[in-house]
Amino acid sequence: MKVIKYPQRNDWSKILARPTFDTSSLNATVSSILAEIKSGGDKTVIAYEEKFDKVQLSTLAVSGKEIEESEKYLSEELKAAIRTAKSNIEKFHSAQKFETKKIETTKGVVCWQKAVGIQKVGLYIPGGTAPLFSTVLMLAIPATIAGCQEIVLCTPPDKEGNVNPAILYAAKVAGVSKIFKIGGVQAIGAMAYGTESVPKVYKIFGPGNQYVMAAKQLVSLKDVAIDMPAGPSEVQVIADETANPAFIASDLLSQAEHGVDSQVILTTTNEAIIESVISEIKKQLADLPRKEIAEKALQHSIAILVKDDEELIELTNEYAPEHLIIETKNYTDLADKIVNAGSVFLGHYTPESAGDYASGTNHTLPTNGHAKAYSGVNLDSFVKKITFQEISKEGIENLGATIEIMAENELLFAHKNAITLRLKK
Amino acid sequence: MKVIKYPQRNDWSKILARPTFDTSSLNATVSSILAEIKSGGDKTVIAYEEKFDKVQLSTLAVSGKEIEESEKYLSEELKAAIRTAKSNIEKFHSAQKFETKKIETTKGVVCWQKAVGIQKVGLYIPGGTAPLFSTVLMLAIPATIAGCQEIVLCTPPDKEGNVNPAILYAAKVAGVSKIFKIGGVQAIGAMAYGTESVPKVYKIFGPGNQYVMAAKQLVSLKDVAIDMPAGPSEVQVIADETANPAFIASDLLSQAEHGVDSQVILTTTNEAIIESVISEIKKQLADLPRKEIAEKALQHSIAILVKDDEELIELTNEYAPEHLIIETKNYTDLADKIVNAGSVFLGHYTPESAGDYASGTNHTLPTNGHAKAYSGVNLDSFVKKITFQEISKEGIENLGATIEIMAENELLFAHKNAITLRLKK
Repeated sequence: MKVIKYPQRNDWSKILARPTFDTSSLNATVSSILAEIKSGGDKTVIAYEEKFDKVQLSTLAVSGKEIEESEKYLSEELKAAIRTAKSNIEKFHSAQKFETKKIETTKGVVCWQKAVGIQKVGLYIPGGTAPLFSTVLMLAIPATIAGCQEIVLCTPPDKEGNVNPAILYAAKVAGVSKIFKIGGVQAIGAMAYGTESVPKVYKIFGPGNQYVMAAKQLVSLKDVAIDMPAGPSEVQVIADETANPAFIASDLLSQAEHGVDSQVILTTTNEAIIESVISEIKKQLADLPRKEIAEKALQHSIAILVKDDEELIELTNEYAPEHLIIETKNYTDLADKIVNAGSVFLGHYTPESAGDYASGTNHTLPTNGHAKAYSGVNLDSFVKKITFQEISKEGIENLGATIEIMAENELLFAHKNAITLRLKK
Repeated sequence: MKVIKYPQRNDWSKILARPTFDTSSLNATVSSILAEIKSGGDKTVIAYEEKFDKVQLSTLAVSGKEIEESEKYLSEELKAAIRTAKSNIEKFHSAQKFETKKIETTKGVVCWQKAVGIQKVGLYIPGGTAPLFSTVLMLAIPATIAGCQEIVLCTPPDKEGNVNPAILYAAKVAGVSKIFKIGGVQAIGAMAYGTESVPKVYKIFGPGNQYVMAAKQLVSLKDVAIDMPAGPSEVQVIADETANPAFIASDLLSQAEHGVDSQVILTTTNEAIIESVISEIKKQLADLPRKEIAEKALQHSIAILVKDDEELIELTNEYAPEHLIIETKNYTDLADKIVNAGSVFLGHYTPESAGDYASGTNHTLPTNGHAKAYSGVNLDSFVKKITFQEISKEGIENLGATIEIMAENELLFAHKNAITLRLKK
């Protein structure tokens, strides 16, 4: 962990630069696979599953029996934990339901919005070493609450053609309609265009490797909406002298163990805490199964010492962290001034892992500074708001002249005429 | 206007295909201009203004004096109309303000969202024959309500270097911070990357020609968020025997006069109304200043006769129109079943032009079927929702074990350790 003391403002952007990967170099390869999936359908998907996931599949859909049997392979305590997490995620996202308000903007002119669930959504859950069943909950639960009618999930199978039972169980519990054994670019293509067995969806959600990210971006240009641009995960911790160095070290390591490109930043006005945290990290790192990954991530992680809280807040809002943990005495005051962040964790007993799994907030969040313009996934991500308006004869009499004048000045006389004809009536 | 009677379901997608233009053929040209703007700044923007807008500019910013003087050139009635529209747009969008709710998902675990205005937003207003001052209102008013701190507007000047006074007046009234005389790709580049005079923004809004659309898509891949993918404007009218054919004709022509690629669709279960509307269109068309444009748009417009209301609704949700006007007796029943549309206009006295200008709803809406996944511009478009959580010692005692089990099963032991350490304390 590199320590930077009192950096100049001009150097912030260089110091805070993310270890990003430009996926555009993959576009040619990814485009050609997408085009093949679009024209070839299931057959091509199956061929790519053999090529990339080394598995021979006769059918892509996970059977009802496989889903039913998934719970046999899980411990009772894991199932109970998934159900508890589900209940909290449900509570938090249900509270985000939109209530229609009818607004009479002019006498006789009534306008409102109606939130409608996106009819068909696609969730991508990566494979790899760890089964990300928590991401299944984070995406499928709000989709269900939003009223999405078809919730499709794609995830790569293992070489025997099986999907991890925790993923299947979470999908069942959260209300996924259809699960397919498809990974990578071929999964994104299948959901974007539809195949014989995979329904075409209107919006695709979920994390993935650089190929998956490139594929999501490419299909988002024309064919389907996506949740948000993705990048490596990141955490910033703000700490003061009241913070517990062991807690901070564990929070930084939680992020570092995600991947070698994870970014981990400690920021403080207290010089002493930096050394204590670094020494705690060394201690905790020794016992971690994913030690090698975390060590590599820590090589480009930084601790920044700044002069006061004001500078701390400015730097944080400039960085716009995906996760921000504020472990200080005055965390409420600092939190009030945060304008750019994905998810903020307040106080000494609120680690990021709580939000990653079970507190109820969503863990799909904007990385790479995108928190300056994007929200994390929330109930809004699964609905669109349609506007409605109803104007009475009185309403058009009240507002007609205003519209006529504006239309005329934009030289749009048919627009004006639609009013004039009604006023004459 | 082509008439299609009782089409087969299989043929719907062919019949309802949009006259879209694939902007990817422009990507090479647009990318190279964007790269030049990124490295060259103001000087390059000024050179492109000379090349494309045939204007020699010494400075890009519109001066305070130009803005102040704009109202001298406008009639009192236009200024009053702009203020009325502003008031309605303000009422409707203010009602969309988000109220934070704190949710205790588990005893001691409190989660909430806070809506924060995107700090810097950029609005693009095209030039051309008509000054789109209404779009200035539609974008700048919600940005102001959202609390966006810097609202930058770019619009191309005329050959004398002047911006239309109605645009300047609307910008002033709506709270725009800075206005620049820049059009096209160079405007999108200037706002995406920032130049010596134009601030870099975090999200870009607004319509434009195919080059502007291509530029917005390209910068959205890495540098900045955008409002939504854009396409030619479109309207669908649903009519029954109670509808007034002259009203419908005027509504269809309002859309047709926008551009030769506008799409205009009449749908009904009543055969007789089609002929009456077609004959009304002919009558009204004769007097329109933009007759030639409207005539071309009408060449690819269609009237579709379907067998019943159920089919009508299915076809509408499949088409997902940007604007939908329901001019029938039972418009409330039909409206309840609409799940894919941008903005819906109800009854015989609710023309699209009301929403285009002054009823209060936004006129920046998803075209090209994107209403299946996207909302139109609304207050949400200018904010991001940050999640917060605060967990007490009691909270972590209640939820800790759940998180530990989940983390362990995802093989993320540092995540688990962040809990274990706190539980031990």
